[in-house]
Amino acid sequence: MSDVKKVVLAYSGGLDTSIILKWLEDTYGCEVVTFTADLGQGEELEPARAKAEKMGVKEIYIEDLREEFVRDYVFPMFRANTIYEGEYLLGTSIARPLIAKRLVEIANQTGADAISHGATGKGNDQVRFELGAYALKPGVKVIAPWREWDLLSREKLMAYAKEHDIPVDFAKQGKKSPYSMDANLLHISYEGGILEDPWAEPEEDMWRWSVSPEAAPDTPTYIDLTYEKGDIVAIDGERLKPHEVLEKLNKLGGANGIGRLDIVENRYVGMKSRGAYETPGGTIMLKAHRAIESITLDREVAHLKDELMPRYAEMIYNGYWWSPERKLLQTIIDESQEVVNGKVRVKLYKGNVIPVGRESADTLFDENIATFEDDAGAYNQKDAEGFIKLNALRLRIAANKGRKLG
Amino acid sequence: MSDVKKVVLAYSGGLDTSIILKWLEDTYGCEVVTFTADLGQGEELEPARAKAEKMGVKEIYIEDLREEFVRDYVFPMFRANTIYEGEYLLGTSIARPLIAKRLVEIANQTGADAISHGATGKGNDQVRFELGAYALKPGVKVIAPWREWDLLSREKLMAYAKEHDIPVDFAKQGKKSPYSMDANLLHISYEGGILEDPWAEPEEDMWRWSVSPEAAPDTPTYIDLTYEKGDIVAIDGERLKPHEVLEKLNKLGGANGIGRLDIVENRYVGMKSRGAYETPGGTIMLKAHRAIESITLDREVAHLKDELMPRYAEMIYNGYWWSPERKLLQTIIDESQEVVNGKVRVKLYKGNVIPVGRESADTLFDENIATFEDDAGAYNQKDAEGFIKLNALRLRIAANKGRKLG
Amino acid sequence: MSDVKKVVLAYSGGLDTSIILKWLEDTYGCEVVTFTADLGQGEELEPARAKAEKMGVKEIYIEDLREEFVRDYVFPMFRANTIYEGEYLLGTSIARPLIAKRLVEIANQTGADAISHGATGKGNDQVRFELGAYALKPGVKVIAPWREWDLLSREKLMAYAKEHDIPVDFAKQGKKSPYSMDANLLHISYEGGILEDPWAEPEEDMWRWSVSPEAAPDTPTYIDLTYEKGDIVAIDGERLKPHEVLEKLNKLGGANGIGRLDIVENRYVGMKSRGAYETPGGTIMLKAHRAIESITLDREVAHLKDELMPRYAEMIYNGYWWSPERKLLQTIIDESQEVVNGKVRVKLYKGNVIPVGRESADTLFDENIATFEDDAGAYNQKDAEGFIKLNALRLRIAANKGRKLG
Amino acid sequence: MSDVKKVVLAYSGGLDTSIILKWLEDTYGCEVVTFTADLGQGEELEPARAKAEKMGVKEIYIEDLREEFVRDYVFPMFRANTIYEGEYLLGTSIARPLIAKRLVEIANQTGADAISHGATGKGNDQVRFELGAYALKPGVKVIAPWREWDLLSREKLMAYAKEHDIPVDFAKQGKKSPYSMDANLLHISYEGGILEDPWAEPEEDMWRWSVSPEAAPDTPTYIDLTYEKGDIVAIDGERLKPHEVLEKLNKLGGANGIGRLDIVENRYVGMKSRGAYETPGGTIMLKAHRAIESITLDREVAHLKDELMPRYAEMIYNGYWWSPERKLLQTIIDESQEVVNGKVRVKLYKGNVIPVGRESADTLFDENIATFEDDAGAYNQKDAEGFIKLNALRLRIAANKGRKLG
Repeated sequence: MSDVKKVVLAYSGGLDTSIILKWLEDTYGCEVVTFTADLGQGEELEPARAKAEKMGVKEIYIEDLREEFVRDYVFPMFRANTIYEGEYLLGTSIARPLIAKRLVEIANQTGADAISHGATGKGNDQVRFELGAYALKPGVKVIAPWREWDLLSREKLMAYAKEHDIPVDFAKQGKKSPYSMDANLLHISYEGGILEDPWAEPEEDMWRWSVSPEAAPDTPTYIDLTYEKGDIVAIDGERLKPHEVLEKLNKLGGANGIGRLDIVENRYVGMKSRGAYETPGGTIMLKAHRAIESITLDREVAHLKDELMPRYAEMIYNGYWWSPERKLLQTIIDESQEVVNGKVRVKLYKGNVIPVGRESADTLFDENIATFEDDAGAYNQKDAEGFIKLNALRLRIAANKGRKLG
Repeated sequence: MSDVKKVVLAYSGGLDTSIILKWLEDTYGCEVVTFTADLGQGEELEPARAKAEKMGVKEIYIEDLREEFVRDYVFPMFRANTIYEGEYLLGTSIARPLIAKRLVEIANQTGADAISHGATGKGNDQVRFELGAYALKPGVKVIAPWREWDLLSREKLMAYAKEHDIPVDFAKQGKKSPYSMDANLLHISYEGGILEDPWAEPEEDMWRWSVSPEAAPDTPTYIDLTYEKGDIVAIDGERLKPHEVLEKLNKLGGANGIGRLDIVENRYVGMKSRGAYETPGGTIMLKAHRAIESITLDREVAHLKDELMPRYAEMIYNGYWWSPERKLLQTIIDESQEVVNGKVRVKLYKGNVIPVGRESADTLFDENIATFEDDAGAYNQKDAEGFIKLNALRLRIAANKGRKLG
Repeated sequence: MSDVKKVVLAYSGGLDTSIILKWLEDTYGCEVVTFTADLGQGEELEPARAKAEKMGVKEIYIEDLREEFVRDYVFPMFRANTIYEGEYLLGTSIARPLIAKRLVEIANQTGADAISHGATGKGNDQVRFELGAYALKPGVKVIAPWREWDLLSREKLMAYAKEHDIPVDFAKQGKKSPYSMDANLLHISYEGGILEDPWAEPEEDMWRWSVSPEAAPDTPTYIDLTYEKGDIVAIDGERLKPHEVLEKLNKLGGANGIGRLDIVENRYVGMKSRGAYETPGGTIMLKAHRAIESITLDREVAHLKDELMPRYAEMIYNGYWWSPERKLLQTIIDESQEVVNGKVRVKLYKGNVIPVGRESADTLFDENIATFEDDAGAYNQKDAEGFIKLNALRLRIAANKGRKLG
Repeated sequence: MSDVKKVVLAYSGGLDTSIILKWLEDTYGCEVVTFTADLGQGEELEPARAKAEKMGVKEIYIEDLREEFVRDYVFPMFRANTIYEGEYLLGTSIARPLIAKRLVEIANQTGADAISHGATGKGNDQVRFELGAYALKPGVKVIAPWREWDLLSREKLMAYAKEHDIPVDFAKQGKKSPYSMDANLLHISYEGGILEDPWAEPEEDMWRWSVSPEAAPDTPTYIDLTYEKGDIVAIDGERLKPHEVLEKLNKLGGANGIGRLDIVENRYVGMKSRGAYETPGGTIMLKAHRAIESITLDREVAHLKDELMPRYAEMIYNGYWWSPERKLLQTIIDESQEVVNGKVRVKLYKGNVIPVGRESADTLFDENIATFEDDAGAYNQKDAEGFIKLNALRLRIAANKGRKLG
């Protein structure tokens, strides 16, 4: 263990990562560099700096990564209408690659030979952090204290904190949430507690970002979303940066009871786990993006995207953002979005996201052909006969030769 | 045209198919057998019999196919969580194969050499009817009047009706819907009219099966759905037949503002078209089925189903229900459902379908392993290191050899 | 039919297209522009010019497209290791898009409003020509004489030729091949004749480009192929243009009995058909390309390519080269080839293509890790335990809960 | 380590597994049950019994599993035309699941709580053995000595053998092959030695099962293979059991220089490795199976199989034979083979496997429709126009709206 000289720690400023900070110094006799990022989790970062300073950390990195996070990770993912297992919008998964990248970059800058994080050995996040780190800095040493130490109960942790003079906000501890939570601009997640029983409905006071549909306003909110190359660039005509778009949609969605999700999902490490999520803005984005694609994408391109999507989602969920296969699929996804421009009108109402209008200079919707009225010869109905006849040919040959379908 | 001796017509009893009936007799000098089915479209069938009799039809088939429809078509399709283009629940598509099958069977019974239908040359339904018919009776002659005749305006049709003494319900004509509609137990659809402008929001009075979310009750409804092999067999403990399940869910969903959909979709014949749909029961079924699968299906089986689903949906949408490839995929889908047993609790509220509980004797959710608390050694966190290391190996080798991912 | 003013005809100079030329003038009263291309089919083009001139054609296009054909069509296709139905190297399919493109371009240049070709109504080529033409010039009129005229027997054709003074090379007619053939730089194909019986073995004298394995030399030929971005750029160190590469490989392959294929394939129009093919160079390229990819491609990228390949092959076979979905897949294929550089040594011997060596500056083969000898810690065997344990976790949970696999 | 009471060892009778036998007793103080199977590797089993007896083993299992191996593993796999990474016929992979199953069954019978094998920590076989064992007996303890002990050089092994009085056949050791080999009825494999250099061609004397194409007979061998439900049941009319089929094809193939393969493949544990294989019978089976499918399978079924195959191959390669997802894909594969009946004639000549005829009572090849001669109206060429027009519609709309494909 004496090999490690300097380690960059993903540091939240909370109790657990403060204990890790101390434990790393003690166990590895190494210097610790802290890295704290604002990904929109809604917490002040300066207390983390103060705490790190107090614990004697010399190199402290505190960064606002919100714009980069949404622009380079969230938006590209939404271009694919990405959903894991039919439901999950990958709010936690998509934040990990950026953190892994910064950990590695800071290690390179500070001459650190290791990185460390506070994810447990049971979850997906350890995989996402570490696959990313290994992919970007193959010789890096990764220290995952939860897999190494024996501080496996809350009591032992508290004792360690006390023993090593780590400030515990006891007031806060008193009302500690029974849930394991994670938040960033895309979502907030809840695990553990009563959620470990899949039959138990989450309690109303668990949710933090959204009102319930019941408590949402009785009148709907209409918004217009402007798309350029598959990304939202303006809301109601006001041009916004990527993270401003998401912040605004989170507010609008949260206020209208939108984006709550309660599922059982399959972790990459092999177990099923229950999770609850609030993804107000993301839920709006998914629906609206499908709407703008519905008039601008070619049918076969859209279907190809739909068939590749589950695999793309799996790559991100499993931690392979930093992989050649994810990069390759991204090429196709991004290329498909060149024509995804235009405007979508969405109605928000008590948990519902309802696209009610879509328009685009790049529309492939052809009213002259689609119309139920006289189309002036734009479409020749007689063509349909040959179309059907030849599509049926193999079926007819088979039936003629006695094959049964019934 | 003199080849055709007898034709089985899919006959609704409405004006259009009554005109077709007459036109077939006149044009082909053939006998017409009518076939009218109750698929849950919510219309009386006896008036169709009366009308057919009045028009001199000798062989009249009127059948209640609701149970068969839901049991053998709707339920199997929902086992796959089937959605076309991310949104459409295939309400029209799934009814066509049963009608095609009955048309062919009646042709065989009555010695008819042809079948006929009232679908236009622009839509998907002609394809679905005809592919099915050709697959099941390869030598059948298909007559699609809309592709053949010159009665291409409402005026000409009315003139033809008048000339041939076909009863037009003028009272009804006066308030004729501006939409082209289709209904069965799974859904009701709307096309045409103002929907031909993708930017125009449907008017509230278009919708027929559901109240708006705004008009739905202010208190939620909770229901328990019991699953056996992927199908719902009971609601709130009451055992029901398949079509009774769907009827009840339609009522519950419709009353709670659930199941409205407004999209632009890609037709098999090559154009984009706007459609609005109400699928109250189906919308509940989709959400609930995913919930019961979430605890009973193996991860890789679930992912395989998700990747195959878009293709399965496309087969049904395009009219290939009666094909060996659909049958083959059905094998895998049905086989996967052996273990999909248990109960899902769903909350219905103003357009929202929210699974709040799931339980099963076949659950794969293992609380002992998933827990955030002490798991008594059920899971060895140290295993994660090797898991990550070997999954990262190819990425590390590549990075070591200078490959860039950034 | 009087609408057509000028038509561009894909003109081989042979009897059939000469008759078409005349028939177009007579039937449509239009001017005909001829287009004859050298795609490496091994025939002189100047006789076609002479014949066209003699028939009074004013605008004659004769072009050597061999380099463009191989560079922009054949090579991109081989980057995907493309095979249709496990066997067919798509030699005919890949030539059609280039011809379609040139027909359209010449139509634009000459102000023609129509194009015409000599493909029958039963085959795939009509589809490939016409889908391409419609995609590139949506308003173009396509005339497919074989689907329109009544010259459906050889006798009628000959009579028409005689009547209209079209020169028939009777000497040549006398020894007319019993097969329908097509050739370009990638292959020569045979259909019809005794091949219509799938049990009948092709006669040795049918084959034109290759000696039989039996007749090939008794000593093997070794060649070194140099790759850049997935394409062969040199043979035995000699830098060659794309079409020169293929010409040389055709010679080497043909001389060594390589590239004969005899299959039953599924046509897009719905029937099965028997075809025999000689693809000497292509057969070498396929094997060698897999070999260079085997050391340079990441595993997951390679597997993704393998899973997408059948669909890509289907697109090309069915005539969708000029489509957004093919273009999109090409993006991913081309992107994957950035690292496919290096050298492959191949042994050619009596029908066999045997890669015996591969090397690359971009290799991902790591001898230090792969070795059976001492690896000095490059790979930690203990990592495998955790890797296996977590990959097995879902299987163990399922077994513990009583699921059966047996 | 004292937990283990009894372990079932996959015992070949060779030096390595004899050392393991002793090491298990010493290290775990447990009883060892040996299991030695005849999978067609071509070695006597009785010496293994004698050796085990001499080493004091009380429970010795020696079994001839050749028929079960081919019937339940090899044949089902070949129904899918399974190839890993375009080349590898999975000869080693497919034998592991059966061994894993028997190890577990013997453990159940003998009351053993652990199993052990001689696979190293770098390869795929450990994964295949252990995933299978965990899936079938989730509580089993697996002991993989190569991942645990420190006998990592040949010298240490030999010293251990000497020290523990384990008989070493020094004569044999003297001429020990430089390759790591594995054999069963499907193939023999070679790794290591000069193969660790991907540029080095294997030496002729490495190959053991086949003559070189050069040394094969100068006259071809023709054989007729009879298929029932996708499996070969007779050769030249002689009905054979599955393993007899493979034995005979191995002889025929080996004698004709068929089935050698030399590739670099991607291991599941993350590295690339060079392997050489001889699979004479399997190589014939693959080609012939495609031929019989070519006339009996529906087009879309065949394409679906082709698209799923790479994933199915990956499952087997990675060790997931005993998994619900492999079982599910097998369902579809087996179902598709109901109609794969008939006869294929194959020509074997100096490394070439050339199908020259195929016939079936279940053929879908329709000569009346496919013919280049007059088809008497079986196919209406005019249908092709509508077929093409509607397939082109979306492309034309896009082009009309200004989309570019060029």
